[in-house]
Amino acid sequence: MAPKAPKRIAAVLGIKPEHIGQYEAIHREVWPTVLATLKRNHVQNFSIYRYENLLFSYMEYTGSNYEEDMSAIAADPETKRWWAVTEPLQSKVLEAGADEWWHEIPEKFHLD
Amino acid sequence: MAPKAPKRIAAVLGIKPEHIGQYEAIHREVWPTVLATLKRNHVQNFSIYRYENLLFSYMEYTGSNYEEDMSAIAADPETKRWWAVTEPLQSKVLEAGADEWWHEIPEKFHLD
Repeated sequence: MAPKAPKRIAAVLGIKPEHIGQYEAIHREVWPTVLATLKRNHVQNFSIYRYENLLFSYMEYTGSNYEEDMSAIAADPETKRWWAVTEPLQSKVLEAGADEWWHEIPEKFHLD
Repeated sequence: MAPKAPKRIAAVLGIKPEHIGQYEAIHREVWPTVLATLKRNHVQNFSIYRYENLLFSYMEYTGSNYEEDMSAIAADPETKRWWAVTEPLQSKVLEAGADEWWHEIPEKFHLD
């Protein structure tokens, strides 16, 4: 059986202009424990780009229970420590819902 | 030999608010000839997302001469016709260079 196509997720998040340098520096060496938690929860091919004061993320999810895996990531103690470092550098976009940090944006075109 | 990792390219482009509906409608049925030209020139896993009046694109390039393949895409008559339809719906972002339509944005993090 061919492997199932991954679920693609893109999202946006604000970056505070005065913290761009620090944000980019720490993202050159994200903690291995944080990366391992993402992989263990079926996140792959995950990239973050910056356009001025906006971060754009693209990731692929290969598991079968997205909500459960995202909850497992959020519950990981090292990930919580990482987010405690990164969140003060960021700011939610106006359009983000109360339950969102990264604001998911809809796919309008795809070519495999 | 393991296949070489693709080159990842992300970019932004403005979408005129009054043309969002038309842009999204035509992107649900992009001409097969246009898609075939992309594939033939080593573009894969190409997605476009929209955040308000901004389009985000993510694509992977698997060839060995990016400039040459992009030039071949730009020279394709059907692709030129397609762009003649889509460009009036779009607007370059302020940060785009004179030689850019889509404005490439830098990757700040990646996890395979």
